[in-house]
Amino acid sequence: MAEQKPKFVGKLEWPVTIQLGRGMEGAISNESTIGYVDGEKGWLVYRGYNIFDLAEHSTYEETAYLLLFGKLPTKKELEDFNLKLVGYRAVPKKITELMKDLPKDVHPMAALRTGVSLLGCFDPKADEVTVENDTEIAIKLIAQTSTVAAAWARIRKGLEPVDPDLSLGHAANFLYMATGEKPDEFTARVMDVSLILHADHGMNASTFTCMVVNSSLSDLYSTVIGGIGSLKGSLHGGANERALAELLTIKDEDDASRYVKDAIAQKKKIMGFGHRVYKAYDPRAKVLSQYSQQVTQMKGMESLYKIAKRVEEDVIAAYAERGIYPNVDYYSGTIYYALGIDVPLFTPIFAVSRVAGWCARVLEYLPINRIFRPRAVYVGPMEQKYIPIDQR
Amino acid sequence: MAEQKPKFVGKLEWPVTIQLGRGMEGAISNESTIGYVDGEKGWLVYRGYNIFDLAEHSTYEETAYLLLFGKLPTKKELEDFNLKLVGYRAVPKKITELMKDLPKDVHPMAALRTGVSLLGCFDPKADEVTVENDTEIAIKLIAQTSTVAAAWARIRKGLEPVDPDLSLGHAANFLYMATGEKPDEFTARVMDVSLILHADHGMNASTFTCMVVNSSLSDLYSTVIGGIGSLKGSLHGGANERALAELLTIKDEDDASRYVKDAIAQKKKIMGFGHRVYKAYDPRAKVLSQYSQQVTQMKGMESLYKIAKRVEEDVIAAYAERGIYPNVDYYSGTIYYALGIDVPLFTPIFAVSRVAGWCARVLEYLPINRIFRPRAVYVGPMEQKYIPIDQR
Repeated sequence: MAEQKPKFVGKLEWPVTIQLGRGMEGAISNESTIGYVDGEKGWLVYRGYNIFDLAEHSTYEETAYLLLFGKLPTKKELEDFNLKLVGYRAVPKKITELMKDLPKDVHPMAALRTGVSLLGCFDPKADEVTVENDTEIAIKLIAQTSTVAAAWARIRKGLEPVDPDLSLGHAANFLYMATGEKPDEFTARVMDVSLILHADHGMNASTFTCMVVNSSLSDLYSTVIGGIGSLKGSLHGGANERALAELLTIKDEDDASRYVKDAIAQKKKIMGFGHRVYKAYDPRAKVLSQYSQQVTQMKGMESLYKIAKRVEEDVIAAYAERGIYPNVDYYSGTIYYALGIDVPLFTPIFAVSRVAGWCARVLEYLPINRIFRPRAVYVGPMEQKYIPIDQR
Repeated sequence: MAEQKPKFVGKLEWPVTIQLGRGMEGAISNESTIGYVDGEKGWLVYRGYNIFDLAEHSTYEETAYLLLFGKLPTKKELEDFNLKLVGYRAVPKKITELMKDLPKDVHPMAALRTGVSLLGCFDPKADEVTVENDTEIAIKLIAQTSTVAAAWARIRKGLEPVDPDLSLGHAANFLYMATGEKPDEFTARVMDVSLILHADHGMNASTFTCMVVNSSLSDLYSTVIGGIGSLKGSLHGGANERALAELLTIKDEDDASRYVKDAIAQKKKIMGFGHRVYKAYDPRAKVLSQYSQQVTQMKGMESLYKIAKRVEEDVIAAYAERGIYPNVDYYSGTIYYALGIDVPLFTPIFAVSRVAGWCARVLEYLPINRIFRPRAVYVGPMEQKYIPIDQR
């Protein structure tokens, strides 16, 4: 069976023989040059660039360009791309007006889903499904998902949305629109790095959702709305909120050790650990762990980091043989929390970033599109006789 | 290789060895007792009942019950189910008010997507993901997708939405809300049969979208919105509009023969023919073809049916060896057109029906949920060196 083990790097000859598990484990969606998760090495790669390099040197705007167009931009190309992104930041007034009529306590991902659906309704070119037009919509969506998510951060508290500041970078402007305050340079950089790290991650569930929606040649808004709906789920984007909520129940480092011991004894899942693909340390968690230490220190919340670190150490030690490590959701929550961002906004921030990966991957597939249509295996009864209702 | 050919009936042992093609061809999403498409025999089965029997004897309400609960209801069960459906028909006034602010020329599926997203925002129990709660939401969605689609049929023409008539059946009430006129018995029955025929169809692209969205344990509104987005695409629900548009360009039967000849010579795809699963005649097209003949005759549009029939005969004859037959989209368009339904509403009607299959299938998967996460195969560059922007 060894030769049937799927390989996730290198050209394929379709059809391929694979071992397929539940939840499409082992299945191959398509060939891609967008990005790659090396679960053994603990590497995340966008277009051949290691996430460690991008987190250190790049910006979200440059990373989005890289994902969409396959290369790092020249200075001129990045300027032009930035100009477009900035130009698209403001959304039609009508959209935030309509969002004000939503119940204030609605799930922020439901508000974002509705807001992006409205964006589609107000874009007269939404339904022109070509690579060229969808590329333009992708740039719009990267700019405007941020605006809509930030608008909801305000509206849900009864505050007026803040117009984008065209002089700020993408991450800083998001924080500004969400909080009404211009972030300091370090805070803006932390958000920028977090957006870089979340921008793409192989064929995850929300990205796959986007691929499936778009493969009927639907419009890119419907596609991204599908991705938002998937990311909303507690097994996907919702995980960072739950990981943080758990951490906040722990008093100190000793209590952290007690917490891990109890969880293991009760066979309770510890949120923020483990990943279907990574068998090594999640590289995003590695980067975010360092920022978490810095940010919590800066904000006088060292104990939150220390608790998180102790839980991590104890979990890693307890499962040394299986190799269980924190995933991206584990530390992102501690950072956002320390930055004073409301917990319900964590998943929308994930979407604000991931929209780049969603769009890049569906744009790549569009010219060679084939509709995704697996089959279910029928295990029900056959040839049932229809009996009139008064004889049942 | 013969033993590796996937079987689509009968219990599986996971993992299974399969031959996988592009677009997840040959892949298995899950085991299901909801329904089955036998492509060789030209059968469509819901819970063991042949679609021919259901189209002849059942109603959409009963069929929806069958799909959701796995058995034909007793009289009492159907009455209770109907009572719920009828009780859920009216949507919060706010939702149609908000929809009035959408541009009138927006794609009706984008309006429906937005309307259902609003339904989710106004349901305080939307995010309680349990089989029990999602079953209740499924019944709500079956009732209200109809109301929202019909409301848009009115609003797009500048007309007031029509409140549901609680004394009418599901199909008749939909026509009433969409047109403002109570349909005669035959017209109502034609719509009822069409809704029965579209309610489920194996693991098609929109149903698979719903499965993928829901598998992150997202809420059922997000799930159905994903399905609507997928169905919107021109390769999926959009196909019936395009099939009809083609037929309307044909003058008479002779012109139909000319049309087929030209299309074959030019290797042009003839809309409404062929299906990835059916190698025999699509049973839904078989039923709808008969209704198409009756309805077109009743409405003095015999020539439309005759043209469609001639195109069908010529296509079948031309591709006798490959076995290409009309699919469901081919005749549904002629029926809706003859009934005077605006062409842009064809795909929303598909959604009004299919919502039952979407919900039934995700509810079946929920208790044994595993997140759908295939992988892409990376064929891009590796170990790219990050070069500072001024050196590029």
